[in-house]
Amino acid sequence: MAQSSGETLRARYEAVRARIMALAAPLSAEDLCVQAMEDASPGKWHLGHTSWFWETFLLKPHHPGYQAYDARFNFLFNSYYEAVGARQARPERGLITRPGLEAVLAYRAHVDAAVSAWFDQADERQLEALGRVIATGLAHEEQHQELFLTDLKYLFSRSAFAEAAYPSPHAAPAPASPPALDWMAFEGGVFPFGHDGQDFAFDNEGPAHEAVLTPFALASRAVTNGEYLEFIEDGGYRQPGLWLADGWALVQQAERSAPLYWRKTDAGWREFTLHGERALDPSAPVCHIDYFEASAYAAWAGARLPEEREWEHAARHDGRDDARWMDPDGWLHPAVQGQAGMFGEVWQWTRSAYGAYPGYRAPQGAIGEYNGKFMCGQFVLKGGSALTPPEHVRASYRNFFPPAAQWQMTGLRLARDS
Amino acid sequence: MAQSSGETLRARYEAVRARIMALAAPLSAEDLCVQAMEDASPGKWHLGHTSWFWETFLLKPHHPGYQAYDARFNFLFNSYYEAVGARQARPERGLITRPGLEAVLAYRAHVDAAVSAWFDQADERQLEALGRVIATGLAHEEQHQELFLTDLKYLFSRSAFAEAAYPSPHAAPAPASPPALDWMAFEGGVFPFGHDGQDFAFDNEGPAHEAVLTPFALASRAVTNGEYLEFIEDGGYRQPGLWLADGWALVQQAERSAPLYWRKTDAGWREFTLHGERALDPSAPVCHIDYFEASAYAAWAGARLPEEREWEHAARHDGRDDARWMDPDGWLHPAVQGQAGMFGEVWQWTRSAYGAYPGYRAPQGAIGEYNGKFMCGQFVLKGGSALTPPEHVRASYRNFFPPAAQWQMTGLRLARDS
Amino acid sequence: MAQSSGETLRARYEAVRARIMALAAPLSAEDLCVQAMEDASPGKWHLGHTSWFWETFLLKPHHPGYQAYDARFNFLFNSYYEAVGARQARPERGLITRPGLEAVLAYRAHVDAAVSAWFDQADERQLEALGRVIATGLAHEEQHQELFLTDLKYLFSRSAFAEAAYPSPHAAPAPASPPALDWMAFEGGVFPFGHDGQDFAFDNEGPAHEAVLTPFALASRAVTNGEYLEFIEDGGYRQPGLWLADGWALVQQAERSAPLYWRKTDAGWREFTLHGERALDPSAPVCHIDYFEASAYAAWAGARLPEEREWEHAARHDGRDDARWMDPDGWLHPAVQGQAGMFGEVWQWTRSAYGAYPGYRAPQGAIGEYNGKFMCGQFVLKGGSALTPPEHVRASYRNFFPPAAQWQMTGLRLARDS
Amino acid sequence: MAQSSGETLRARYEAVRARIMALAAPLSAEDLCVQAMEDASPGKWHLGHTSWFWETFLLKPHHPGYQAYDARFNFLFNSYYEAVGARQARPERGLITRPGLEAVLAYRAHVDAAVSAWFDQADERQLEALGRVIATGLAHEEQHQELFLTDLKYLFSRSAFAEAAYPSPHAAPAPASPPALDWMAFEGGVFPFGHDGQDFAFDNEGPAHEAVLTPFALASRAVTNGEYLEFIEDGGYRQPGLWLADGWALVQQAERSAPLYWRKTDAGWREFTLHGERALDPSAPVCHIDYFEASAYAAWAGARLPEEREWEHAARHDGRDDARWMDPDGWLHPAVQGQAGMFGEVWQWTRSAYGAYPGYRAPQGAIGEYNGKFMCGQFVLKGGSALTPPEHVRASYRNFFPPAAQWQMTGLRLARDS
Repeated sequence: MAQSSGETLRARYEAVRARIMALAAPLSAEDLCVQAMEDASPGKWHLGHTSWFWETFLLKPHHPGYQAYDARFNFLFNSYYEAVGARQARPERGLITRPGLEAVLAYRAHVDAAVSAWFDQADERQLEALGRVIATGLAHEEQHQELFLTDLKYLFSRSAFAEAAYPSPHAAPAPASPPALDWMAFEGGVFPFGHDGQDFAFDNEGPAHEAVLTPFALASRAVTNGEYLEFIEDGGYRQPGLWLADGWALVQQAERSAPLYWRKTDAGWREFTLHGERALDPSAPVCHIDYFEASAYAAWAGARLPEEREWEHAARHDGRDDARWMDPDGWLHPAVQGQAGMFGEVWQWTRSAYGAYPGYRAPQGAIGEYNGKFMCGQFVLKGGSALTPPEHVRASYRNFFPPAAQWQMTGLRLARDS
Repeated sequence: MAQSSGETLRARYEAVRARIMALAAPLSAEDLCVQAMEDASPGKWHLGHTSWFWETFLLKPHHPGYQAYDARFNFLFNSYYEAVGARQARPERGLITRPGLEAVLAYRAHVDAAVSAWFDQADERQLEALGRVIATGLAHEEQHQELFLTDLKYLFSRSAFAEAAYPSPHAAPAPASPPALDWMAFEGGVFPFGHDGQDFAFDNEGPAHEAVLTPFALASRAVTNGEYLEFIEDGGYRQPGLWLADGWALVQQAERSAPLYWRKTDAGWREFTLHGERALDPSAPVCHIDYFEASAYAAWAGARLPEEREWEHAARHDGRDDARWMDPDGWLHPAVQGQAGMFGEVWQWTRSAYGAYPGYRAPQGAIGEYNGKFMCGQFVLKGGSALTPPEHVRASYRNFFPPAAQWQMTGLRLARDS
Repeated sequence: MAQSSGETLRARYEAVRARIMALAAPLSAEDLCVQAMEDASPGKWHLGHTSWFWETFLLKPHHPGYQAYDARFNFLFNSYYEAVGARQARPERGLITRPGLEAVLAYRAHVDAAVSAWFDQADERQLEALGRVIATGLAHEEQHQELFLTDLKYLFSRSAFAEAAYPSPHAAPAPASPPALDWMAFEGGVFPFGHDGQDFAFDNEGPAHEAVLTPFALASRAVTNGEYLEFIEDGGYRQPGLWLADGWALVQQAERSAPLYWRKTDAGWREFTLHGERALDPSAPVCHIDYFEASAYAAWAGARLPEEREWEHAARHDGRDDARWMDPDGWLHPAVQGQAGMFGEVWQWTRSAYGAYPGYRAPQGAIGEYNGKFMCGQFVLKGGSALTPPEHVRASYRNFFPPAAQWQMTGLRLARDS
Repeated sequence: MAQSSGETLRARYEAVRARIMALAAPLSAEDLCVQAMEDASPGKWHLGHTSWFWETFLLKPHHPGYQAYDARFNFLFNSYYEAVGARQARPERGLITRPGLEAVLAYRAHVDAAVSAWFDQADERQLEALGRVIATGLAHEEQHQELFLTDLKYLFSRSAFAEAAYPSPHAAPAPASPPALDWMAFEGGVFPFGHDGQDFAFDNEGPAHEAVLTPFALASRAVTNGEYLEFIEDGGYRQPGLWLADGWALVQQAERSAPLYWRKTDAGWREFTLHGERALDPSAPVCHIDYFEASAYAAWAGARLPEEREWEHAARHDGRDDARWMDPDGWLHPAVQGQAGMFGEVWQWTRSAYGAYPGYRAPQGAIGEYNGKFMCGQFVLKGGSALTPPEHVRASYRNFFPPAAQWQMTGLRLARDS
């Protein structure tokens, strides 16, 4: 592998593995054990599952003499890999009081030691052969670091007294004027898309291919809380003509009238964050809206959501880059964007249903279940958020969630036809 | 309108309106009143709703002095047009015992007389101005004719004794060898898509636009019952690796193990049709499978489902054309295809999520709710079925249903990358 | 059987069987086919089921040479007798569009002819031997006549336009002052209860037995709409302290705030009846309240619901008797009571859970499933209603329904400890 | 209060309060935090709720100058007292990761110190005045000690690997022959029932009253696992004629075929206990069966369940008494009964629906919600179990649970008419 000597890989492994430990440090065993809804997993489960991934895809098949730490952990911490066997049902991940947190941390240490031993003995040929497995393991672990935080946030929001999961850092950003919203215009034509080259990317980012774009424009920044509030105050949640049919049904049935975590008080709107509840900052990008809300807002604003390829094309041609990423000691919430750019702060819904690129084939073996089997009923999101680990995303990166999901750090950027 | 003088339009109106009356003729008031599941509407409701469409979009706004037949019918027979007001909840369409069938037929006659009177007085300018509304009304009515039959079939299938809704016609086809399955190969390139020209098409078929295809091949005919049976017998419903994640969950939870309406008996597989239950015909195209089943079959066969644009491109270049369409006096079920072609017998699932074409905008007004608001969570189907009225579909036609739907006459045609 | 010669029995059979035909006469096949909720059965099903009862318990076992009308009807019209075989699922009784109404009426005529032929040939010994089966069949049929009306009423109430099921009779009662509410006091002691003697009674009314009563008082009449309205206006539905825990949960979850069929309009409260909607009559007994509402009202009024044995004891000692019963041509709704008595107008909830009397044993055979297997989770009601056929109830009669049921004609009479 | 000087009361308070601490000692914070189903509460919640009870009913109203420990705990730890304000929804008790276990234990210590201070200053008059509140608090705490164990057992049973919650004590009983089943015959007559006298009893045990019993017989001991296994092996779960209608529906829908916690293996039946899974002991009383299973077993055995007054009458006249009660260091599961008696090992279902005794009135104030509002839809159980604290039950004690509940330690004793 051209890009990674063993030392570089090992250093990245150690850095990534350490990050979730920093996230878990301030939390109690109880905080890390409970599951507050089916979509969200307990922190302890994320800690166990990410170690299981290394055990299953690196250590067991490729580390001679590796002894499984505990045969039962394969049942507990397999997420959805049918090819790897039966597993704890997803809605029951919160029942795992045994093994306790300490046992799961011991499992992590065991796996880390074994991976370290594997690095010790690996020659260039082995590093080359397993470079992709290792890169996938790192990217996978980074994804679970973001989920660790979004799932924890949901749990804390359901607490009767909405405590902070993390203390506010010194550098909590003050409200400020967001930059003016400009429209960046793009010509139509046949352009390249998808991941190309030697760096790691997920299977679903390829193959590289060409596609046609018609002329379009993208907003220079994400929609802010203040703008979204205008939509609410203009009755946006009461006008069926703005909504997709499924979204309108959801608004009525679930009585949705604001983003998740917003709460209206006599003293104005407030918002729950990982640092506790605070007054809504009108200058920050709106987040925790589902696809239907994003789509309805865009319709209300006389615009639309971008296609995923429009977004990718723009990202390849945008010079700006001051994206802000997850910092375990920093501000774990979207903040006002300065010059901003295409990346960071909030995941941006596109109107592209998540599907296969032309010529896509899922890899062989269990790891082939990673992305392909979810190509139904979800929408692509681009750009990463303030909870996404650094160096995780790129222009071709395709995140995906079901349209009703609000608990991810999801916002939007407007698009329109030119 | 170039293609339709008033006389031609009126003749089409009369022919289309007569067809559903022929379908309803052999049925009792009870058969036409009951709703057997939320997705399926009673026949009487289809009879009322299609008349309501003409009243709402032609007569009330454009026929001076038109008197609404009964103000309450706007509530009962509005399907989903938020802009036209409140309406009978969809799962409660079966509660409409009043008005009775005779009253709804009187409503039809009233609307027909008024439309006839409108034609009597319409000049060329009016015909020109309203030609698109009328063509939409006709296409809409044809869609409900197919739904009339699929919904009725579901109701009859739930009857304890699975009676025939319609007598078997003399010309019931005998099992025969299906034509051999060939692969039709297509080059890649930039090609035109979407509807263009003066003939009627739905809003979602446009705008015409260009897109890139990569080289692919399509099967020369649809998958047959016999082929699908091999998939079942090979354990297709028990191998998670063949299924999309949502499909595998559905197979387990709903205990699906065969197409809707199939029943295994000691004497072999049987299939419920609008002409009653009969032995499964292995030579006929498989139907009543959902998107997940189509996708799993394709994976089992080492192939995939086509993209909607692949299908459209192929249909524009296929010389064969002996499609068989709905005939109220004929065989209301897929039959073995002779030379066949791209159209007819069964709707064919594509792997394209139903969404907007580049530059698509929904029309203004209530009629703008026709297609656009459903662009979430559904997949495109192409080609039409043995229950589709003649002259209804075309290469650009985009039908769409949710992936779990089985009660439509849905099958598949295989595709693969070249 | 001492009390019934063949002629008397046959005359009663003919009168009872004719009554439901009179109830069905003004209704359409559609009205009689649809099922509006799981608890309520279609009218056509009641017509079929009551005939099935005679076929199953009299004709098949006791009429030599009897030919079953249609073997499939045993599946369709068995209600819940496990011992008689599989049956149409209760929530799917509305799917029976085939057989149509005419076929079910032909079935009735066939059964009636066969029963008539049986009477022609029956000697005294046979009449004696089967007298109890016949009396049970008659009582069963009368029960279904009341259900026919309550189920139909529910269906019509769900219609968008709340039509009358039956025209208002000439003698529709005008509002009037109800008689003053007096308290009838009773001494304590050991008293006899349960049915004794030769007349027909259901198995659950016996054995006759003794039990202790402590001194109590009963109200001289049922609670009226006007009185119940005071409870509503005093915030009765908002005070948890008045409610049983399950009732309070239901009030909050189902958002109950008035009896079923009441509707508040700008012009005051209105009530849906079998004769259409009309202004609420404050003088008539309140009806269509569930057990929880009856219990909460009693608590609000500083009283309680009676024990079933208190009611029975009072009924045996009450000289008043001008009960009003179901008259197919009369007023099918509770009306102001004159001198009244213990019986008629509304079924009266007691606080006695429905269970076995000391020494109770269910009869052998399928007919043993009639009452005993429901002795869990239901409460006893006494007295009969304006929809109960004449001569059907008696002091020992025990009706029973689950506590949340509102669609029966249920009201209450207050009790208190002396 | 005659029976309790301050010192005696205080000693009982300290003993009762200490017992649950002993039960919690071997468990982790995670074990005590998670809620595995709606009916079962987390151990931490039981620890908090029992302290809240003392704070709410003794300290706040009666301890001058008492400072609430944390105003928010009134929300978290109120169970169902509407009069005491809003509260954590029951199905969300498992979301309470904050306050953590240590904070809840600190709350316990705070309450204990305040109660101790209250005892220090209480004179005889105060002890007299509040004796009933204190006795209620002790009985309430004992009830929650049993629930602590049954709820914990359910959680551990849902763990993937069914660990022991408590180590097996040395004295784990070995299987042995149960005593022969004899029938104890009782005469009929008018007898006294309900609690009378000065000792503490719950409000629902009174008033004392007379009632009639008809001659009956009771089994000398509870039904054993071995006997229940015969019922299973004889097809008891497949014979609808043995079951109440609601029970048969549950058997089919929930696919019940054995008591909760039983598991059939190739090596025979096994049973999950608080000491882990072990081979089923045929000599021990069957437990974790619901009312429907108890009722069906009795029908299969040609017997019936007792009336609650039959049981009470027998208990007053039974000389045997070697009941075994909850011992935190002992065997926390039913064991073979020696001479046995009416009490201990398993709660015994009666066929009496839980309702009010003649003349019953709920006490005034919030504490009046303790028992009365549950008098609907539940059945009375008698006798106490191996998880019931010592000195908690008596002949008049009325436990009650819904008929479908299996997670309590519930079994049965047969009765029959003489």
